Amino acid sequence: MGITLNEAAVQLLTEDKNIAHIATIMPDGSPQVTPVWIDYDGTHILVNTATGRVKWRNLQRNPNVALSVVGSQNAYKAISIRGRVVEMTEDGANDHIDKLSLKYLGKPKYEGHRPGERRVLVRIEPLKLASRI
Amino acid sequence: MGITLNEAAVQLLTEDKNIAHIATIMPDGSPQVTPVWIDYDGTHILVNTATGRVKWRNLQRNPNVALSVVGSQNAYKAISIRGRVVEMTEDGANDHIDKLSLKYLGKPKYEGHRPGERRVLVRIEPLKLASRI
Repeated sequence: MGITLNEAAVQLLTEDKNIAHIATIMPDGSPQVTPVWIDYDGTHILVNTATGRVKWRNLQRNPNVALSVVGSQNAYKAISIRGRVVEMTEDGANDHIDKLSLKYLGKPKYEGHRPGERRVLVRIEPLKLASRI
Repeated sequence: MGITLNEAAVQLLTEDKNIAHIATIMPDGSPQVTPVWIDYDGTHILVNTATGRVKWRNLQRNPNVALSVVGSQNAYKAISIRGRVVEMTEDGANDHIDKLSLKYLGKPKYEGHRPGERRVLVRIEPLKLASRI
């Protein structure tokens, strides 16, 4: 069962320009962790990746993820979330990366597309929250 | 075989007050990720935890870890490291948390000890580095 995040956690996910670090599981069972832009729709945590990336390949195989966010304005605000990917879709993924570009860079059109890259919107159901806020 | 980190990666681990996010593996095989202070001794990445914590329990069982660091002064400097814990020891762990307290808080004595807590120094051999620097 997914959990509802408390207000302090939602603030950390949506305000400022906080980077999340998302852990996924490699084929050999070991972890991988990389920084991502982050969003929250009231139910799911949203991240945006692209086809072919290690993270994307890992999530095709294993939906278990963990996220860690530290406040960019206050390093003593921090949350760690464990969750599960419930959807990965290309539908709306380009619009969503534009939204994140606006949030993080102030640019309404994402300019980082690589040739042939297909963006993927990843919806994560939060299952467990640990916070220090 | 461990790898030698390049200068840019070492800078990110040792300069400024960059926080690392360390992923470990839960008993069910899913990932967990939390923020940690970070250090590098020229061979191993060093982190400091305490007995009883989730991270410590996970590492007792499974030495595979991953670390993600983003530059606090420049979010476009980032490294992701996969590695393996080669030692966890209480020897020197209190001196080491004092060293980290100085680096991150400017205080030569760590003031965050909890009653009964035993600090643990974790030495991580880096195996794979991905960087964007």
